[in-house]
Amino acid sequence: MTLPVLLMLLHDASGVVSVDEQDPSAPQVSVLDLGVTRGDGIFESIGVIDGRAQALEPHLARLAKSAAMLDLPAPDLDVWRAAILRSIELAGSATVGSELLVKVILTRGIEDGDSATGWVYCFDAGHYDREREAGIAVVTLDRGYRSDVAETSPWLLQGAKTLSYAINKAALREAARRGADDVIFVSTDGFVLEGPNSTVIALIDGAYVTTPPSLGVLEGTTQGAFFADAQARGASVEYRAFTVDELRGADALWLASSGRQIAPVVTLDGQPVSADPAFTAGAVERLLAR
Amino acid sequence: MTLPVLLMLLHDASGVVSVDEQDPSAPQVSVLDLGVTRGDGIFESIGVIDGRAQALEPHLARLAKSAAMLDLPAPDLDVWRAAILRSIELAGSATVGSELLVKVILTRGIEDGDSATGWVYCFDAGHYDREREAGIAVVTLDRGYRSDVAETSPWLLQGAKTLSYAINKAALREAARRGADDVIFVSTDGFVLEGPNSTVIALIDGAYVTTPPSLGVLEGTTQGAFFADAQARGASVEYRAFTVDELRGADALWLASSGRQIAPVVTLDGQPVSADPAFTAGAVERLLAR
Repeated sequence: MTLPVLLMLLHDASGVVSVDEQDPSAPQVSVLDLGVTRGDGIFESIGVIDGRAQALEPHLARLAKSAAMLDLPAPDLDVWRAAILRSIELAGSATVGSELLVKVILTRGIEDGDSATGWVYCFDAGHYDREREAGIAVVTLDRGYRSDVAETSPWLLQGAKTLSYAINKAALREAARRGADDVIFVSTDGFVLEGPNSTVIALIDGAYVTTPPSLGVLEGTTQGAFFADAQARGASVEYRAFTVDELRGADALWLASSGRQIAPVVTLDGQPVSADPAFTAGAVERLLAR
Repeated sequence: MTLPVLLMLLHDASGVVSVDEQDPSAPQVSVLDLGVTRGDGIFESIGVIDGRAQALEPHLARLAKSAAMLDLPAPDLDVWRAAILRSIELAGSATVGSELLVKVILTRGIEDGDSATGWVYCFDAGHYDREREAGIAVVTLDRGYRSDVAETSPWLLQGAKTLSYAINKAALREAARRGADDVIFVSTDGFVLEGPNSTVIALIDGAYVTTPPSLGVLEGTTQGAFFADAQARGASVEYRAFTVDELRGADALWLASSGRQIAPVVTLDGQPVSADPAFTAGAVERLLAR
């Protein structure tokens, strides 16, 4: 079997009725699907290392949480888990010694219809050696929201992983214009949020710190694994709101995501950030060995 | 010819290379299209009354503006105009005496590809008599942004008509939960913005007032036609920032959009708003006669 592998999850009003392998190079989505006409759906990207799906249960839990936040029908996680694992199985020998990704997508389906659209897509994730080893240049950008917006205004869907990512893509283009690789979003009241497709980890006063989901950020699956590893090695970890000033004063910074695992931040808004390449290399190795 | 009509605009790196009629009930979009995986694209909805495309040039101008804001290739407006008119022509007798809509979509295309995806889709817009005559119940909802965010943070894409509309759909579901039909978004600093898919028109001190695009709202095509009609009839019109308090004190309110034309707001956050059904009926008639 060659990559990529596409499994379409055919839905009716009651849920998934079949899981069918389809040609990923042929069109599979209707022009009336709310996923494309309104970005009205959710997704996950799951790392697959040497055939092992990473953080599968946290990804499925987050998919269910996003579905609830968008009032989508609750996904049958057993069906989705089986489809994800089947797509990896179908990738066969392509999984050996490689880093793949499985993208999971669930949309509200055809406008005025009564059934969702879903698929899983297993593909080669590319290479992240440069980001992991040489690190990334990051700029801070205003997300435009206060840090309490997830609590005051749930219809803004902060903390749901939706298909409406045009702003995230625009932020990455703005970073490129500024000569940077990636973005850390900050709230209007001065707190650190997250990247467009990553979680921020800061080393502050000897503890690994990340922003809690209550501030309207996604619960990071890779950051969760990093924290578990750090704790197992006796380090302190903290979920707490921290400010842009604390970010600028951090002893080290990483962005965590399913593809890159972790990438060290080497400049923040053009200012150098200290890095510990040996530590990062070890942590990446342990994250890949999960 | 029966509705709906779908014309796919096939692109290569240089732009549109052909315009082909396709079966709208068959899948036409790749699972890798950034329109569906990232809501990374733009759209317009154009009213078609008795075969006449309404506000075609303002819609095309707004499409070009949205494309620029998203760093998409500039659409060749002559090609898009011709495709829109051809879709109406193909609808044939279905246009006679009817209200249709043409939806225009342009996405960034396949991930890592070099060509956009586009289509126009002409369909029956349904009936809006109830909204136009009985009016609509509207709630105000926080958009979470300050009124100056379009100027300070262009990567937030406020004022672009993107496919990333999950928040707009969530806001409409929140309205339904509150027993209302529609939403007026307000800024965190207390200014009136727009509806999820409409422009607000308020009658304040004898003048028709709407929010200027500088506050990060779309330039309304239907509201523009309403203003032109009002001015031609000797009324005052104003583009200016106005507050939620002014909204609550307005002598009348309407939401303007391509399908409904204008719908009078009869309650705002549960409080009655005075309406002038005879005036609205006349204005709808003139808007439909454009």
